[in-house]
Amino acid sequence: MPKVSIDLDMVLVTNQEFVKKAEDCMPELHETMVKPAALVDIVKTDAVYPQVKQKDSVENLSNYHLAKGDKICLDFGDHQVGYVTLKVNSVGSPQDAPAFLRLKFGEIAKEMTENSADYDGWISRGWIQEEYIHVDILPAELKLPRRYAFRYMEIEAIDTSLKWQLVVEDVTCISVSAASMDEVKHIESEDEMVRSLDRVSLRTLMNCMQSVFEDGPKRDRRLWLGDLRLQALTNYVTFRNFDLVKRCLYLFAGQTRDDGLVSACLFTEPKFIVDDTFLLDYSMFFGAALLDYYKASGDMETLRDLSKCAYRQMEIVKEQFDEKNLLVNGEGFWAFIDWTEGLDKQAAMQGVYIFCTKKVQQIAEILGDKEKATELSAEAETKAEAARKYLWDKETGLFVSGSDRQISYASQVWLILAGAVSSEEGIQILDKVKELNPEKGMVSPYMNHHYVEALLLCGKKEEAMDYMKYYWGGMISSGADTFWELYNPKNPAESPYGNSIVNSYCHAWSCTPAYLLRKYF
Amino acid sequence: MPKVSIDLDMVLVTNQEFVKKAEDCMPELHETMVKPAALVDIVKTDAVYPQVKQKDSVENLSNYHLAKGDKICLDFGDHQVGYVTLKVNSVGSPQDAPAFLRLKFGEIAKEMTENSADYDGWISRGWIQEEYIHVDILPAELKLPRRYAFRYMEIEAIDTSLKWQLVVEDVTCISVSAASMDEVKHIESEDEMVRSLDRVSLRTLMNCMQSVFEDGPKRDRRLWLGDLRLQALTNYVTFRNFDLVKRCLYLFAGQTRDDGLVSACLFTEPKFIVDDTFLLDYSMFFGAALLDYYKASGDMETLRDLSKCAYRQMEIVKEQFDEKNLLVNGEGFWAFIDWTEGLDKQAAMQGVYIFCTKKVQQIAEILGDKEKATELSAEAETKAEAARKYLWDKETGLFVSGSDRQISYASQVWLILAGAVSSEEGIQILDKVKELNPEKGMVSPYMNHHYVEALLLCGKKEEAMDYMKYYWGGMISSGADTFWELYNPKNPAESPYGNSIVNSYCHAWSCTPAYLLRKYF
Repeated sequence: MPKVSIDLDMVLVTNQEFVKKAEDCMPELHETMVKPAALVDIVKTDAVYPQVKQKDSVENLSNYHLAKGDKICLDFGDHQVGYVTLKVNSVGSPQDAPAFLRLKFGEIAKEMTENSADYDGWISRGWIQEEYIHVDILPAELKLPRRYAFRYMEIEAIDTSLKWQLVVEDVTCISVSAASMDEVKHIESEDEMVRSLDRVSLRTLMNCMQSVFEDGPKRDRRLWLGDLRLQALTNYVTFRNFDLVKRCLYLFAGQTRDDGLVSACLFTEPKFIVDDTFLLDYSMFFGAALLDYYKASGDMETLRDLSKCAYRQMEIVKEQFDEKNLLVNGEGFWAFIDWTEGLDKQAAMQGVYIFCTKKVQQIAEILGDKEKATELSAEAETKAEAARKYLWDKETGLFVSGSDRQISYASQVWLILAGAVSSEEGIQILDKVKELNPEKGMVSPYMNHHYVEALLLCGKKEEAMDYMKYYWGGMISSGADTFWELYNPKNPAESPYGNSIVNSYCHAWSCTPAYLLRKYF
Repeated sequence: MPKVSIDLDMVLVTNQEFVKKAEDCMPELHETMVKPAALVDIVKTDAVYPQVKQKDSVENLSNYHLAKGDKICLDFGDHQVGYVTLKVNSVGSPQDAPAFLRLKFGEIAKEMTENSADYDGWISRGWIQEEYIHVDILPAELKLPRRYAFRYMEIEAIDTSLKWQLVVEDVTCISVSAASMDEVKHIESEDEMVRSLDRVSLRTLMNCMQSVFEDGPKRDRRLWLGDLRLQALTNYVTFRNFDLVKRCLYLFAGQTRDDGLVSACLFTEPKFIVDDTFLLDYSMFFGAALLDYYKASGDMETLRDLSKCAYRQMEIVKEQFDEKNLLVNGEGFWAFIDWTEGLDKQAAMQGVYIFCTKKVQQIAEILGDKEKATELSAEAETKAEAARKYLWDKETGLFVSGSDRQISYASQVWLILAGAVSSEEGIQILDKVKELNPEKGMVSPYMNHHYVEALLLCGKKEEAMDYMKYYWGGMISSGADTFWELYNPKNPAESPYGNSIVNSYCHAWSCTPAYLLRKYF
């Protein structure tokens, strides 16, 4: 089901001073030249994920003379985000027709076995990393202008002619990131899975750190506020690139809807503009992300600059409550929480509101704005009380959401993270929801992160570790070099887009094991 | 049936002095900026050729907001050979996915209705003028790096996203040619068809005149000797670009097989190299083309330089005769004559040999090489005598070819052009072959040209004009802006390549009406 919002009548207000400060923090990207590690065959099996078989050494690359329909697949050894250059030539008689090539890039091996022609999902097929290229004159150096996110690269000679064959003489990737793996200390552990969780998290975050914190370098390649908050938290304990977070915060505050609402995501090319997508949880996270940034960096100027924007988000959402102090569900794609189909978001959003109100209250306290702090403290308490009064279901011992009193993981997790219940109550809730295993589960690593954080907040350290190994470890067992946008251990091929070929397999919101391991263990 | 020759063991000999002289004659191309004339709809009908309907003025181009799957078709008003630049933009919400476009170029409207996915012919599908392009950031100016031959250009938004649409703001073609229409005087006639035959011939030749005389600017985009001869003849009486012919002659003589045989075609990019295709008729035409060039230009230095190469071709083919002085059919793709399937080429090639021997004899005479001239004169007579003795079928009054005594148009035409019979006999032969209408007819305009020239040589001027109007005029009636590589009035969709989508619709060898009209009428 398409989840998009369009508001062509949106009026935007730009704060040039903030935009200037964001521009001043534009990072210089580190460039690394990477050569393919091997020629491989990717073979479909009965399992969900195909088998990757070593075929030949890359040294033998130019021994492959590709006639019409022949293809080769290169393995770059790890997930790359970068710019690819190929040297191609012909062998045989003189080149009497244009070379017609298809290039296909995949973050995971499974993508390489999927056929773009079969795609009928609702988001743009333009995201499928596949190019059709004619080369009139060989030899040629093809400097591909686009950036790709990939580990595997397939080169198919769609056609040559009866008289000559195509030879790929060399392939190079210039991988780019605002972060460098040299800057970070890996976690030391005797548990190999723990080391893997950390390594894959770091690679995920690094490859999403570009001119902004991107959500995914394959798709959508842009800055989303909900993702930013988790990326930033992980970044503070790993790469510690504070300027990139500062840049992103100033961008979000630098252009808002005319009522001051912060957009859910934004674009920096061809020029800076925020999107006409507004998700109330994401808008509220502006304050939480700002507080996290101040705590990590000590940058008081930024905190002061952007505090009003943080306050404003809470004011706007405050208008969405009914007389019982319960948040009223919005229309359309109004809040994110998770991709879970049919999820009622009321209770979880009540939790997010309380959570963020408390964060923004801390900002007010740091800035010495006692009146604001007191007001926000009271607000959080009122809303928590309402949640306990109206959203609590005595029978099940769980929070319910909406007029249908839906029970979901998301409602429990966010009201626990909000501190609407004590950690003792939280333990019981988490045990019960697990036992009940409601139909409304968790789809995104983003939601799963908040679940693990709720476990940890309630002191369930061992269970949290087990769950990380089950959930993120499940991706590793399936061959992940970077963590995915989506992962359902029970249905690994699931996609909210109608087809997994457009799924992103290096997605920032799933990089948090590196943060959780460092913060809680 | 594939007709290619491959000789990877071929040893080439290069004459650097000749190559230098060819390089010195490299033309500077005229550039003309051309804008589309209209937006059109191309509609399939029950007829072979679709209907082109005016849809809108180009001024309204940017009013078309292309969502997923939408397409527009531009009509550039006449056949163009050039480089296209598009300005594309987005409307709606910010561009949240790459634009994915398909561009399709067609020389004639019929190509626009054909689907490249259906192509299963034996020559490279790389010739189909179709591009798939991703544009990550809009607005963008797309300067397409390849040269296209087209009148129609279709732009399809394969995908945008649910949030925005694609707008084509502007399209420009920089058309290129070594010739300029300003340099030529059109034929004045009260007969509109005669004026059209001339105009379309001139456009055909002009658009094939690039850094060499190309056979077709869509396909194969290279210099073939058989085509060159006819292009040069037409050029001498129209654009009169002598240097371009000189360049092409020096290129053919500049690199030959080690026995001196001239190749059928050659490439100039990435560097000059002749192809490993040798067609004995084409090789022999080197001398005929050289003589034509001298007669038109008076360039004695070139005639002297290249005469040995002309002699050598005749010496090599002389070895191919049997004891009866009949040419022995070669193996594989050894001679061209025409695309007619199953054509026995013996008799026609006997004619080409006599024809060229007489041309080369004239070269020897001009250069004062009497001995050579006498020798060639005797040779032509001997071979003509053999043709009359062994290839003449008294019963039908026609020439036959090969062991199966095949009767074809080609055999009659070439033995008439060779002067193996008198023009009175020629008249009878031409009448009889028409009456008999043998299964081995004529496919290419190249063969049809020689048929018309045979008619004219025998004084059948009216019939020649009628035939030109029937044959080349048939293409004009089907909407041709330039004359085609192939045209069978009885089967217009015919292709020797298995599928007409790769046919060339601006093909030099069919430009000769402009020559025939000026020379014979």
